[in-house]
Amino acid sequence: MKTVLILSGGMDSATLLWFLLARGDDVRCLSINYGQRHSKELGFAAHLCAITKVEHRIADLSVLRPFLAGSSQTDDSVAVPHGHYAAENMKLTVVPNRNALMLAVATAWAISSKSAAVAYGAHAGDHAIYPDCRPEFTDAMEKVMLLCDFTPIKLDRPFIHIDKGQICKLGTKLGVPFELTWSCYKGKEVPCGKCGACQERQEAFAFAGVPDPLLAPDSLND
Amino acid sequence: MKTVLILSGGMDSATLLWFLLARGDDVRCLSINYGQRHSKELGFAAHLCAITKVEHRIADLSVLRPFLAGSSQTDDSVAVPHGHYAAENMKLTVVPNRNALMLAVATAWAISSKSAAVAYGAHAGDHAIYPDCRPEFTDAMEKVMLLCDFTPIKLDRPFIHIDKGQICKLGTKLGVPFELTWSCYKGKEVPCGKCGACQERQEAFAFAGVPDPLLAPDSLND
Repeated sequence: MKTVLILSGGMDSATLLWFLLARGDDVRCLSINYGQRHSKELGFAAHLCAITKVEHRIADLSVLRPFLAGSSQTDDSVAVPHGHYAAENMKLTVVPNRNALMLAVATAWAISSKSAAVAYGAHAGDHAIYPDCRPEFTDAMEKVMLLCDFTPIKLDRPFIHIDKGQICKLGTKLGVPFELTWSCYKGKEVPCGKCGACQERQEAFAFAGVPDPLLAPDSLND
Repeated sequence: MKTVLILSGGMDSATLLWFLLARGDDVRCLSINYGQRHSKELGFAAHLCAITKVEHRIADLSVLRPFLAGSSQTDDSVAVPHGHYAAENMKLTVVPNRNALMLAVATAWAISSKSAAVAYGAHAGDHAIYPDCRPEFTDAMEKVMLLCDFTPIKLDRPFIHIDKGQICKLGTKLGVPFELTWSCYKGKEVPCGKCGACQERQEAFAFAGVPDPLLAPDSLND
């Protein structure tokens, strides 16, 4: 299947890239700069595409920052909260309507490149805090994508019912180079180890029973 | 109701602006530069907001042009077709996934500005060629907007079952300054009078029984 994959540079979408290639899909990747604090992830996305020899485009929508106020990831006046994904303060990390926006750009590219589907790495572990990763959102979004143009576009979300630990296990089997993926919401030189994204990543590797090649305990900072 | 209106600078969204203000809504307007050939319309949108004293923001997403290939409006290799909206060649004017993209940005702004709704001027005359103006699309899109964040956002599309002629009649009653609205797909100095947008505009004014203050017959060019 000819597919546009939304590749953030994190471990979920990286695993999805390896999964789609293993399945035999014809993949091109889209990364979006929406002015995120952790825009460092975009370089990781580019590297992943270089080693898989997959076409990669970065859409620079950082001009949208003023429309995305109130999130720790796109508003400098909001600090990145520490803690677990399930915590109430983690809602501060939600970027307004981020996934619908990224899916809209990906769908436009899917239509103009005559692709059949858009894929993204929404998973069950995200459901607690990210409304735009929940099954009811993805179902509604696919309906839009099937109706928005003359060519219906499928929304592929193979991880929607598995969690990040299971993704880590799958990625390990598929040979995903996790040292080339970035999760930390702070986007500094090394992962902070304290934000929700770092904590969730640590739990995923613990579940999978493998060490995180990126996140060595003595390399943490704040 | 606190509303984000997608204002193109054309007569439909201009009428919708006057309609919402007449209804007592608290309106802010969003215009989007998606690299359209007729980006001239953005200046008209700004003027309409200036005279109604409504906040106006233009999101410059013209970097998305490479993702919107194949449309006469965003791809210089495709000429603007002449003829009527109902004609098959008018499909060339469809910009891939344009409305979902604009609605996604507007929804992000609605969330971050604590607005209750996004409004846009999709109408029954558009249904023949623009999939993203049809009722089934707007119904699906509203479902996404109700689910995409913690705050459900309503999709207001009051013109979805009336056509451009009826909009012209309504706008005339509301005192919309149609000489300050732009329709022509070519975006040159004066309207071409031959593209689908010009023809549809002419028919609308004929139906309403009023002259188009912008489009005088002796001012046409190609």
